Amino acid sequence: MRRLLLVSNSTLYGSGYLDHCEENIRSFFSRDVKRVLFVPYALHDRDEYAKIARNKFQSLGYEVDSIHEAADPVEAVRKAEAIFIGGGNTFRLLKCLYDNKLVTEIRKRVLEEGVPYMGSSAGTNVATISINTTNDMPIVFPPSFSAIGLVPFNINPHYLDTDPNSRHMGETREQRITQFHEEPGTPCVLGLREGCMLLVEGDKATLLGTTKARLFMRGQPSVEYSPGSDLSFLLTAAQ
Amino acid sequence: MRRLLLVSNSTLYGSGYLDHCEENIRSFFSRDVKRVLFVPYALHDRDEYAKIARNKFQSLGYEVDSIHEAADPVEAVRKAEAIFIGGGNTFRLLKCLYDNKLVTEIRKRVLEEGVPYMGSSAGTNVATISINTTNDMPIVFPPSFSAIGLVPFNINPHYLDTDPNSRHMGETREQRITQFHEEPGTPCVLGLREGCMLLVEGDKATLLGTTKARLFMRGQPSVEYSPGSDLSFLLTAAQ
Ligand SMILES: [Ca+2]
Ligand SMILES: [Ca+2]
Repeated sequence: MRRLLLVSNSTLYGSGYLDHCEENIRSFFSRDVKRVLFVPYALHDRDEYAKIARNKFQSLGYEVDSIHEAADPVEAVRKAEAIFIGGGNTFRLLKCLYDNKLVTEIRKRVLEEGVPYMGSSAGTNVATISINTTNDMPIVFPPSFSAIGLVPFNINPHYLDTDPNSRHMGETREQRITQFHEEPGTPCVLGLREGCMLLVEGDKATLLGTTKARLFMRGQPSVEYSPGSDLSFLLTAAQ
Repeated sequence: MRRLLLVSNSTLYGSGYLDHCEENIRSFFSRDVKRVLFVPYALHDRDEYAKIARNKFQSLGYEVDSIHEAADPVEAVRKAEAIFIGGGNTFRLLKCLYDNKLVTEIRKRVLEEGVPYMGSSAGTNVATISINTTNDMPIVFPPSFSAIGLVPFNINPHYLDTDPNSRHMGETREQRITQFHEEPGTPCVLGLREGCMLLVEGDKATLLGTTKARLFMRGQPSVEYSPGSDLSFLLTAAQ
């Protein structure tokens, strides 16, 4: 059974790394998982990033193996009990997943073998159909924007409401997602505000956390969902 | 002689389309230019976009031909007296320039034949080496991030200072550009705040407008430049 925990943001204002979702992490990996395979590719300093993730996960009772320390990354995925892909730059992350031939391997392990997958920010973007709705700067050119495809829709992490007092003329987040939906055949985009996350268990999807999410559908008005909402309908590919 | 007017933003808060740079546009195209070829590819509604550009340019004394109305876009570039590429989504714009085989053609006309080029926002991004430092959402996948390459560095339009009061945890603009410079061999990035623009005439580059620009160089501290600054050193490819 597919099991995913897709978190909007790694750090919530005023708290430490993954603090705001530590109870969700515990109940997601539960006592069944002993070791988590961490993917630090979204940040430049992988050693430092692995240290931060390892400290946090150890405090929750899990050992961490960082994939950048593995001799064979594909083999590391093949043997993983659980996978966590951290945030950073989505383009760098996806390019590195392709460079290491991990996209298909992770998809297979999660969808066919039920390996639990946790993503945060960029790690949530790459879990969806594509990275077309990332907020990140395109600092490197990946071979495709298609991603791991663990769910049949897109996510916009760190979703941000329009600031009515802003004098900045760059596009608002809503305008950006609207531009995406001007393109033909584009899927739903779930805007996850900082503080919320999506739990997927098989064909059931539930919004968790403390903030609302906003769902954007091509050619339709957007809809707000509160924590606890059942979003299983998003898992139907025909969305 | 290469002549470029690279504007950060089409509309400044509280004023109309291109109002803040209309004197710069007039002196850039001067009385030599009668007709400007407009490229509306960055926005979805090209007819509407061409109408807005045409109205503004007519008020300044120039006729506008929109490339989307031309039977043969390459031929339209070959015959253009002057080119203006407007803002919108940079990925959509660059993909469409490639789809229509215009990247090389525009480069040739501007660099070899001295056709004046004006860009605003996304139209400024595509004038540089690459779109690696756009702020836009990657809504479509272009065949490359390499752009027209009229200058040997990158620009970040709508450059935005970090808001010390923000509780949002997404990367600041400075962090994004720092991530770009973590990649090997990356060029300078000129952060053009809304309200400023770069004028290039041959080997001379001058900052114009009413706001400062911030220059980011790989492995060096960033530097502020005020309107009127001579930035010709940026045109040396060895930057
Ligand atoms: Ca990010
Ligand atoms: Ca834009």
